Amino acid sequence: MALKKIDTQKIRKDFPILDQIVNDEPLVYLDNAATTQKPTQVLDVVRAYYEQDNANVHRGVHTLAERATADYEASRDKVRAFINAGSRKEVLFTRGTTTGLNWVARFAQESLKVGDEIVISIMEHHSNVIPWQQAAEKTGAVLKYVYLKDGILDMADLRKKITDKTKFVSITHVSNVLGVINPVKEIAQIAHEHGAIMVVDGAQSTPHMTIDVQDLDCDFFAFSGHKMAGPTGIGVLYGKEALLNKMSPVEFGGEMIDFVYEQTATWKELPWKFEAGTPNIAGSIGLGAAVDYLTEIGMDTIHAHEADLIAYIMPKLREIDGLTIYGPLDDSLRAGVISFNLGDLHPHDVATALDMEGVAVRAGHHCAQPLINYLDVPATARASFYIYNTYEDCDKLVSAIKLTKEFFSNGTL
Amino acid sequence: MALKKIDTQKIRKDFPILDQIVNDEPLVYLDNAATTQKPTQVLDVVRAYYEQDNANVHRGVHTLAERATADYEASRDKVRAFINAGSRKEVLFTRGTTTGLNWVARFAQESLKVGDEIVISIMEHHSNVIPWQQAAEKTGAVLKYVYLKDGILDMADLRKKITDKTKFVSITHVSNVLGVINPVKEIAQIAHEHGAIMVVDGAQSTPHMTIDVQDLDCDFFAFSGHKMAGPTGIGVLYGKEALLNKMSPVEFGGEMIDFVYEQTATWKELPWKFEAGTPNIAGSIGLGAAVDYLTEIGMDTIHAHEADLIAYIMPKLREIDGLTIYGPLDDSLRAGVISFNLGDLHPHDVATALDMEGVAVRAGHHCAQPLINYLDVPATARASFYIYNTYEDCDKLVSAIKLTKEFFSNGTL
Repeated sequence: MALKKIDTQKIRKDFPILDQIVNDEPLVYLDNAATTQKPTQVLDVVRAYYEQDNANVHRGVHTLAERATADYEASRDKVRAFINAGSRKEVLFTRGTTTGLNWVARFAQESLKVGDEIVISIMEHHSNVIPWQQAAEKTGAVLKYVYLKDGILDMADLRKKITDKTKFVSITHVSNVLGVINPVKEIAQIAHEHGAIMVVDGAQSTPHMTIDVQDLDCDFFAFSGHKMAGPTGIGVLYGKEALLNKMSPVEFGGEMIDFVYEQTATWKELPWKFEAGTPNIAGSIGLGAAVDYLTEIGMDTIHAHEADLIAYIMPKLREIDGLTIYGPLDDSLRAGVISFNLGDLHPHDVATALDMEGVAVRAGHHCAQPLINYLDVPATARASFYIYNTYEDCDKLVSAIKLTKEFFSNGTL
Repeated sequence: MALKKIDTQKIRKDFPILDQIVNDEPLVYLDNAATTQKPTQVLDVVRAYYEQDNANVHRGVHTLAERATADYEASRDKVRAFINAGSRKEVLFTRGTTTGLNWVARFAQESLKVGDEIVISIMEHHSNVIPWQQAAEKTGAVLKYVYLKDGILDMADLRKKITDKTKFVSITHVSNVLGVINPVKEIAQIAHEHGAIMVVDGAQSTPHMTIDVQDLDCDFFAFSGHKMAGPTGIGVLYGKEALLNKMSPVEFGGEMIDFVYEQTATWKELPWKFEAGTPNIAGSIGLGAAVDYLTEIGMDTIHAHEADLIAYIMPKLREIDGLTIYGPLDDSLRAGVISFNLGDLHPHDVATALDMEGVAVRAGHHCAQPLINYLDVPATARASFYIYNTYEDCDKLVSAIKLTKEFFSNGTL
């Protein structure tokens, strides 16, 4: 069965924010790896929750509280289905990917010993680096890096780095700088052969492709709502039930408990053991609406759409003299993220110049300083796509880069 | 100058959720201690953010990112003024009160030693109990409780419990069960005389009265947005700058860093040191809008309104035979929270019966099991007020309690 194609003109109607003028030019939003825009459908669900059902969850017997609790837990079921978790107990609502990865690294601290090893890659986001630095520092474990080959993960290096000393492997599914899709299923298999726990940073993959955590066979998988058409302040940590049962709660407070005595307390069963305090109820419900919205389009369709944009734009970008593109040479390994530099221009200047043309891209270290150091550049500019981006957006980026090049052409390129 | 009075009919127009029928009766929402409703003004600001400015903060040079960052940081300034913090560096955005208190208790773990003491009260919410149990368990410190006298904090007991061994005192500003307003300014002074750090759980006070953290002279003060007409998933931890500078970050990730190397990292200055990962941007902006909304009404006016409702309803409640009311005997010590039991009826049955009359109250342990155990009851029902509640709401509660009593009157009362 052929995939249906995305009707971007129809989809763009769901995102009124895109229909605006920035610096006298129509906005071309290409900063989706930082955060995506939210469709009216998601904003309507959040608003309806606040205007009809708002109450605290799990605590009340009155009608609004029952409705709010039902909505909140229904979102968990939607997320479970979306990532094909085996059980709703395995779906923990968090503040975002960062919180999820921090929780896993705190869990690691409970078991890591001097001489144990943690393996991550040089392309990890800070949120998948610093928690592991902390775990290593606090336990005496060793933090090892897998490096790159030809702009992608060096699998030979990975096979060397993962040994029987390895207790945790934590790798991003898609690099937010290189755009490369890493073979996390294969890496999970290697990790498991050595008895290590496999953690996946899914922040950049979950919004863009079908995720099946059971097929990937990862032990933990973290992602954020705001990068997948959902609200800010909400994310998910998936963990295998057996591991979550062993894991201590990270925050303590209301409703994650069974009994609280003056000196001790006991925890509720999964998933509530990890959800202390009033959760981001509206955020969770909004994430559920985002899951509905993306599912309706189809995750394979979304992935194909972005692959189509990449196939369209990459040859045009490669034609621009002085433009350096980072990441995989094989475009089929690339999700909808392109990092680049233009001659010796500072990427901030490039991003500012593109913004003058209405084109929103990011510039900087993209919260991946170890990678930026490894690439031996001060920073990069980055364009990243989503469901509402078009060939016209690609053309505008290409022409704006060319204009930028001309503008700064007095000797710097 | 006389306080202006709240025009509840005008205010209720800002809360369309209140205008609904529940179980064939007009909704009377009296579960405000769990969460308050949100005015249209707040929902509009959040929606406008998502429809006009949405982008990730602190990371981008493009126009939307600059707008989003400006909005986000403007909210911090609003909160700073709202609680009269000395500096915006002292205002940390968190997920809510629970997260703030957990952070402080984690900070305590860094310095507590065997034999050190932590003093809390028996009326604390779980989120101000369990983190301290954990701190005690992990360090060998002793967790001591201050008990009650005549339904309020026993200040003589408090003066006995706080000694030179005490390193942290953590007390709620207003009890979410008893409704009593605790003299936290006086307690801070006692704590400081013994060199202890004073922590205030402001979840139940900040929405209802003027807060001046400098006047209270507390060292930490935590509160939640969703209990003060703001969105879910956002809160604030105030801390004195000197202490926050000593405190380690609790979460690690993007944008809370200056430099990240493969094995080490350095932190940004306050307040960003504590804000790892993409924050709840829309939530923070919504909280800023809630601050605007409440400030426009006036916090002293809000406090006076709730005191007025308490003065109106308490005599009527006291007339009901078989109704036990918990908390202070002196109504002037009570914020807008009333816990009660009706004869031997289980409070869940009472709350369910009240819900049949359209009256939303909470029943249970209110995340304060040590207090419920101390009161020697299985649970309580609880009514709690906010700016949109009226004398008519009070009358409806009283008549619904009387109806409930009649309904169950075959021998149980």
